[in-house]
Amino acid sequence: MKRISESRSVLSEIMLPCQANPNGKVHGGEIVKIMDTCAGVAAMRHAKKNAVTVRIDQLEFYDPIMVGELVICEAQLVFAGKTSMEVEVIVKVEDLMTEAPARVALKAFFTFVALDEEGKPTPVPGLLLKSDEEKAAFAEGERRYLAHKKRK
Amino acid sequence: MKRISESRSVLSEIMLPCQANPNGKVHGGEIVKIMDTCAGVAAMRHAKKNAVTVRIDQLEFYDPIMVGELVICEAQLVFAGKTSMEVEVIVKVEDLMTEAPARVALKAFFTFVALDEEGKPTPVPGLLLKSDEEKAAFAEGERRYLAHKKRK
Amino acid sequence: MKRISESRSVLSEIMLPCQANPNGKVHGGEIVKIMDTCAGVAAMRHAKKNAVTVRIDQLEFYDPIMVGELVICEAQLVFAGKTSMEVEVIVKVEDLMTEAPARVALKAFFTFVALDEEGKPTPVPGLLLKSDEEKAAFAEGERRYLAHKKRK
Amino acid sequence: MKRISESRSVLSEIMLPCQANPNGKVHGGEIVKIMDTCAGVAAMRHAKKNAVTVRIDQLEFYDPIMVGELVICEAQLVFAGKTSMEVEVIVKVEDLMTEAPARVALKAFFTFVALDEEGKPTPVPGLLLKSDEEKAAFAEGERRYLAHKKRK
Amino acid sequence: MKRISESRSVLSEIMLPCQANPNGKVHGGEIVKIMDTCAGVAAMRHAKKNAVTVRIDQLEFYDPIMVGELVICEAQLVFAGKTSMEVEVIVKVEDLMTEAPARVALKAFFTFVALDEEGKPTPVPGLLLKSDEEKAAFAEGERRYLAHKKRK
Amino acid sequence: MKRISESRSVLSEIMLPCQANPNGKVHGGEIVKIMDTCAGVAAMRHAKKNAVTVRIDQLEFYDPIMVGELVICEAQLVFAGKTSMEVEVIVKVEDLMTEAPARVALKAFFTFVALDEEGKPTPVPGLLLKSDEEKAAFAEGERRYLAHKKRK
Repeated sequence: MKRISESRSVLSEIMLPCQANPNGKVHGGEIVKIMDTCAGVAAMRHAKKNAVTVRIDQLEFYDPIMVGELVICEAQLVFAGKTSMEVEVIVKVEDLMTEAPARVALKAFFTFVALDEEGKPTPVPGLLLKSDEEKAAFAEGERRYLAHKKRK
Repeated sequence: MKRISESRSVLSEIMLPCQANPNGKVHGGEIVKIMDTCAGVAAMRHAKKNAVTVRIDQLEFYDPIMVGELVICEAQLVFAGKTSMEVEVIVKVEDLMTEAPARVALKAFFTFVALDEEGKPTPVPGLLLKSDEEKAAFAEGERRYLAHKKRK
Repeated sequence: MKRISESRSVLSEIMLPCQANPNGKVHGGEIVKIMDTCAGVAAMRHAKKNAVTVRIDQLEFYDPIMVGELVICEAQLVFAGKTSMEVEVIVKVEDLMTEAPARVALKAFFTFVALDEEGKPTPVPGLLLKSDEEKAAFAEGERRYLAHKKRK
Repeated sequence: MKRISESRSVLSEIMLPCQANPNGKVHGGEIVKIMDTCAGVAAMRHAKKNAVTVRIDQLEFYDPIMVGELVICEAQLVFAGKTSMEVEVIVKVEDLMTEAPARVALKAFFTFVALDEEGKPTPVPGLLLKSDEEKAAFAEGERRYLAHKKRK
Repeated sequence: MKRISESRSVLSEIMLPCQANPNGKVHGGEIVKIMDTCAGVAAMRHAKKNAVTVRIDQLEFYDPIMVGELVICEAQLVFAGKTSMEVEVIVKVEDLMTEAPARVALKAFFTFVALDEEGKPTPVPGLLLKSDEEKAAFAEGERRYLAHKKRK
Repeated sequence: MKRISESRSVLSEIMLPCQANPNGKVHGGEIVKIMDTCAGVAAMRHAKKNAVTVRIDQLEFYDPIMVGELVICEAQLVFAGKTSMEVEVIVKVEDLMTEAPARVALKAFFTFVALDEEGKPTPVPGLLLKSDEEKAAFAEGERRYLAHKKRK
């Protein structure tokens, strides 16, 4: 069993012109690439195994991101099944030239499966839940996990 | 009113080494970038307006994609609201050196909002549904749209 | 013997700002990179072997390509020698925001040689020609092939 | 006057294959690019103005960085002159698959000059030094600043 | 009138893994991108105007290029018409770890048209030919120019 | 013993929009990447062994570099120790559209260590100094080398 805080992960980058889409704002796919990597860091820190993305749910774009802005991507586990882990990812954005606080630009849930050396799903540690907030988030994650299983 | 077939879109690329992640397979974020772009092509063809991604739902990775494989990304509208459009995206993958048929590697629903020249949401044409399959997919899309609205 | 239609190939991409040259239009080399890849897909589909570019002829740029435009690259074999294949590549461009039809922006002939596993030239299937148009294009390709051989 | 902690900055990224040099390790230039960006974030947070790199001193590579590793780049001001700021940058590297602690891979001092809207050097806030360590580092930075001025 | 030597241009780069194609060698399109840029440098140095590629002829790949090799691209004008310039481009490759001399890997002729500030074709200086070799190359270029004009 | 001229190296590239930083000028890190590669070419030509960067000193940015400009990077050895080599790198920049001569934009000293096949430091040839200028530069390099050794 591991605590959520043990695998909490942050990636942060300044957005460059080569990440823009034709309208000059940052390409959504570039942000999803950072989110996917950050969620993978959290999953690998939890499992200490290789882990691959199997699903993205409820990815919401709240706010466009501009070239030159600082993107701060935070990921933490919300649910751990037998071999799968659901990771919540929040992307905050900061314009360095102003005093405005960082704003939330995207959110999503990424599901990873841990793989052993033959590439087969392999068990991951359970989640040691501390706060009521963590327990409620876990229950929500479990609900999504079961709803997805049923849909298949 | 426009038919679904009028905005159906295909993007296709050979995956290069510079799109790999550290384990040597294609980075999931690179694929999502292509999916997002392809869904945007369909949305812009339908709306003949600029359109931005606001949500990604039920993005499933069925199969890893290798460097050198041909990725064929297909997008078609399933639902059109007042200013929003839901686009189904299917990614097929083909290994050119074998006779094996293309396999489905990912699927997802992308939601776009059309924007006018001030960047405000603007109405999009309705969808002229032909087959029963199109009607069922539209009803499913509407259900997701309403579920999301309620969640907010 | 294989028909031309069996190996016909299409690649399509939206041009991004990171593909621009200093004057803001799409870098010609980026387009040639897509053309080369697309021609290679057709050659590999025909030969079902690895294939490498050995020559590009009569590459014509008719029209500049803008960032944000959809590039549709089409390749089909026109001539097959013993180990070499000549592929015609046509690049069409579409501005998604207008109703204007796609325009032809570039054309070229790419010659590939099929390679076996030791990297030596290896025979490719012949071309089963159907229409008079296909036969005339083949004769033209053969003429270029012989002219090139003589030049060497 | 501002404290050092107000502008302390962190950027962190997973190194991808497209950042490798021909020997397969991460290209030193890619790391310097992240260090330069991270130092610039600290400088712009301190000055709340645009800032450009004018000098890099004592950049030491202690340890090669592998593709797939997590790079954590930390930057903090050590010295502020009238219009220039010296920023210490430390790069730590973490292999996510092991329990080994992050190791220091590079260190350097970057000097930035703040620019006004015409691109002319413009004054920056002074540094409010708290600890003896901060004061010693400032004195060292001042010594480098004066040695450089003399060399010119 | 200007001499050929006044606009002779050289670009040189070490090939990086992000420029590889799926078989691990350097992508032909990456090399064509460098050739196109180098030919453009020569054309702009001759015309002291913006210039765009309109045609590539007889591009031959003699030898594959490996990641890590030094590519030296040389361009010089061979023919100047009223508004167009033909540039010969030769790509040499050097393996830094051996004593082997640089080998010729590609050759091609690039045709550019000079543009005025409205983007219309505009006259370029003539070529002051010195050696017999330059005169023979010019005659060959003129022959290609006229053959192309006739084909259109 | 080898002469400095035997390993003198030049890399040159046109700066593209994908190398810009958010303010539209060329990213300093992109230039350092070219400098590091160019210095490495000189070091490998001298040692005929693999060589890795261990230090960058006195890197000065004199002048911003614009997208579209030609960057000419020149590297030559100034000092050779037992297994280490110090390389001076000068970056010149040329605006192709004007008659202005190339201007010096950056300068730095890069130190490399030659590695044998196990990745251990390995001896490099000495430097055969010809001119008084070469001898003075060598003495300066030796002074930096010893100052750095003492600082450690």
